[in-house]
Amino acid sequence: MKLYEIAEYLQLPLPKGGEIDIHSLASLDEAKSGQISFVMHSKYIPMLARSQASALLVRECDVVELERHNASIIPLVCDDPHVAIARLSKLFAKPLFGGNQNPPKIDPSAQILPSASIGNGATIGARTIIMQNVVIGEDVRIGDDCVLYPNVVIYPNTILCNRVFIHASSVIGADGFGYARCKKTGENIKIYHNGIVYLEDDVEVGANSAIDRAVFGQTRIKKGAKIDNLVQVGHNCVVGESSLIAGQAGLAGSTTLGKNVVMAGQSGAAGHLHIGDNTTLTVRSTASKSLAPNKVYSGYPSYEHKEWLKMQALLRKMTNIKRWGS
Amino acid sequence: MKLYEIAEYLQLPLPKGGEIDIHSLASLDEAKSGQISFVMHSKYIPMLARSQASALLVRECDVVELERHNASIIPLVCDDPHVAIARLSKLFAKPLFGGNQNPPKIDPSAQILPSASIGNGATIGARTIIMQNVVIGEDVRIGDDCVLYPNVVIYPNTILCNRVFIHASSVIGADGFGYARCKKTGENIKIYHNGIVYLEDDVEVGANSAIDRAVFGQTRIKKGAKIDNLVQVGHNCVVGESSLIAGQAGLAGSTTLGKNVVMAGQSGAAGHLHIGDNTTLTVRSTASKSLAPNKVYSGYPSYEHKEWLKMQALLRKMTNIKRWGS
Amino acid sequence: MKLYEIAEYLQLPLPKGGEIDIHSLASLDEAKSGQISFVMHSKYIPMLARSQASALLVRECDVVELERHNASIIPLVCDDPHVAIARLSKLFAKPLFGGNQNPPKIDPSAQILPSASIGNGATIGARTIIMQNVVIGEDVRIGDDCVLYPNVVIYPNTILCNRVFIHASSVIGADGFGYARCKKTGENIKIYHNGIVYLEDDVEVGANSAIDRAVFGQTRIKKGAKIDNLVQVGHNCVVGESSLIAGQAGLAGSTTLGKNVVMAGQSGAAGHLHIGDNTTLTVRSTASKSLAPNKVYSGYPSYEHKEWLKMQALLRKMTNIKRWGS
Repeated sequence: MKLYEIAEYLQLPLPKGGEIDIHSLASLDEAKSGQISFVMHSKYIPMLARSQASALLVRECDVVELERHNASIIPLVCDDPHVAIARLSKLFAKPLFGGNQNPPKIDPSAQILPSASIGNGATIGARTIIMQNVVIGEDVRIGDDCVLYPNVVIYPNTILCNRVFIHASSVIGADGFGYARCKKTGENIKIYHNGIVYLEDDVEVGANSAIDRAVFGQTRIKKGAKIDNLVQVGHNCVVGESSLIAGQAGLAGSTTLGKNVVMAGQSGAAGHLHIGDNTTLTVRSTASKSLAPNKVYSGYPSYEHKEWLKMQALLRKMTNIKRWGS
Repeated sequence: MKLYEIAEYLQLPLPKGGEIDIHSLASLDEAKSGQISFVMHSKYIPMLARSQASALLVRECDVVELERHNASIIPLVCDDPHVAIARLSKLFAKPLFGGNQNPPKIDPSAQILPSASIGNGATIGARTIIMQNVVIGEDVRIGDDCVLYPNVVIYPNTILCNRVFIHASSVIGADGFGYARCKKTGENIKIYHNGIVYLEDDVEVGANSAIDRAVFGQTRIKKGAKIDNLVQVGHNCVVGESSLIAGQAGLAGSTTLGKNVVMAGQSGAAGHLHIGDNTTLTVRSTASKSLAPNKVYSGYPSYEHKEWLKMQALLRKMTNIKRWGS
Repeated sequence: MKLYEIAEYLQLPLPKGGEIDIHSLASLDEAKSGQISFVMHSKYIPMLARSQASALLVRECDVVELERHNASIIPLVCDDPHVAIARLSKLFAKPLFGGNQNPPKIDPSAQILPSASIGNGATIGARTIIMQNVVIGEDVRIGDDCVLYPNVVIYPNTILCNRVFIHASSVIGADGFGYARCKKTGENIKIYHNGIVYLEDDVEVGANSAIDRAVFGQTRIKKGAKIDNLVQVGHNCVVGESSLIAGQAGLAGSTTLGKNVVMAGQSGAAGHLHIGDNTTLTVRSTASKSLAPNKVYSGYPSYEHKEWLKMQALLRKMTNIKRWGS
């Protein structure tokens, strides 16, 4: 799509150099040639010095600064770049189905039960079992020796490597929870999520969990990580190798877990954090800041487990609580 | 159904005036002519002064007072009105299917994938897409430009307006969690939920969420509200216009949110509360009382965010915790 | 299977008496003749004095002690008995389907909608209704007057007694969240769950909930217990008679609830606890220890409700918070 077509779609002034082709959207730090990104705050403009983005949705007040840091990026001036990229995401969203006319490629040793639905362009590897009512979107890639239990839904373009098990009714690749609030109308403008979910080898996901696709790029579950029932993994998260996420735990968007992290039942992490390697969040605790590696944290806000125990003991003493539990 | 038939079904003494017709059950404040309601506590009797309810399940001790406030309501005397209305709800429950013999009305521009199931009496609007294995109950009404992703279940009589998106495996309209405990037997008597769920224009619901139908009346999600994955919305809740409910948050029964309320991930609200317009509940916080508009609340019990921060700082000081997070 | 075949599969030294037959795995306290179990810690060895287990995965350092307590159990010596039993569980896992060639037995009065799938060897009782896209695994037993709403998944060998209602998209009998961490490789070895879920009469389960099968033995929901939406019940839990578990509450593995326990919305219990009869956990509270009967507990850690209220009042006083809620 030509950049001037994007400007027209968004009802923005036509930019100089509008003849260039834009093939997709990207985040500020990942944008490459042929991509358009957006900047909400002036402080991020210096990050663009070496960016190869072709175009940028930007506020008028930031244009001079952008030119100073990187004159090769074409600015698309708008009132609210977040709202603009949200509106634009719809234009780049793939159709729900019908976008690929090639039949799926299914290894002859795979077992696909008759009521399962495999989208065009999908590939299914050797000995993989796809059970009843599983729905696999277009262009999904599934490796060898996987098991998809009944009623699992895999949205288009998701990638599952080898020996991935997904239990019943889990949903992989639904849109993340992203909206841009339009200040004028108060409306929540949907951000269509054009990224994917990538599940590496030996990942297992329990029943009724949800792992959302990325806005741009990938949500990634690394090798050997195990996820229990009713777990939420938000858009653009990374779950590190061999990490364990127990029942009803949740990760808000863009949070990353290192290796061997353990999130106990009903624990959580706010968005845009990093939990270090080998760290454990105990039952019901919540990370609201990034957490160091090789520690155990408890509570909300979460403290190192020993300190949290001290705090609870102090509270009991102050309240004169002598007994608790049975 | 005649009132005397209801009395017979519940094995209660036949009331005077038992020839009147009762067509449905209703809550105390909404009951109209032709409806029967129930009262558990004497303090609610004065509310009935102007009620148009036709009949009332009521304890013997409240009958005189009822007559004093409103002699036109016929009392149906029983030991435990809550248990009685629960038993009665079964009598008024619609059949799971087969109650309507008219084929659904589907706009020719709608796309219904072959494995979807559309109940009798349902209507599907223009350009709406119904994907694989979606199950739409009888008498459901779905507007224009909606998308129901694979394996969504819509229980009978639910209403979806226009541009409503429901992601995979979410369930709209299941019975709420309502039982009357019978004191004699200790049994939990199921309250069949004869109300509905009503989703206004531009509502989006994530994957694996559950929005329960009302006991009587409606559970309502208002225009432009957005609901994430694994969210619970209890029976008879109202979610206000443009409100946002993030992943794994939950509303207990009969709680109402104003406009532009934000419930962050894993937050919650107890039942029968009101959260004021533009108020935010931060990650993991829980409202156990109604909350004022235009505020930010944190923690459980939830306090205004600044006060909660002060409380946490004080706790850290007392426990001599100098560092937390990474 | 012969014991020496098990040793070969696990690449362990062949034991004396390897000709005996082993038909299944069992926990230490339930193992009977023909079963193999495992011991991780020396302290559990004395428990085996009267055990009828036929064989035991055991560390070399515990063999002498085992012989002293019970010379009739054949030791299978290995470095890490937990990892060994995990590897072994795969050998004993039943096939996902195809293990039974007998057609299901369906009572003529049952209603099975055409898109439902009933596994071989399953039995369906009188007047039971199985709705669209329900998937019932092999050898499942379902009693009379049950209702399985659309898209429910029942894993193989699950037992539902009479008048059991399961709402849409709930999953009964998926594998629990059990892995053995291999110290050498850091790998999480899956423990295949060869136990079952047993739902007694009059149990109701809401939408999008998950009740996991036992490792060995049973996960059991007793008569008249009611479970709401999005609830997690871990492997080997027991939910007592007439207990109520509200939305988004969760039980970690092996926790048992007495009779008439109430778990309010978003509450939880850590693993291997017991909650006494008639005890209530209020909204969002979490049991991290076993709880006495006939009490109300709040908070996390959970205290008796009155004490928790005192603690909160003290915190408010210290922080000089005068008002909260609306």
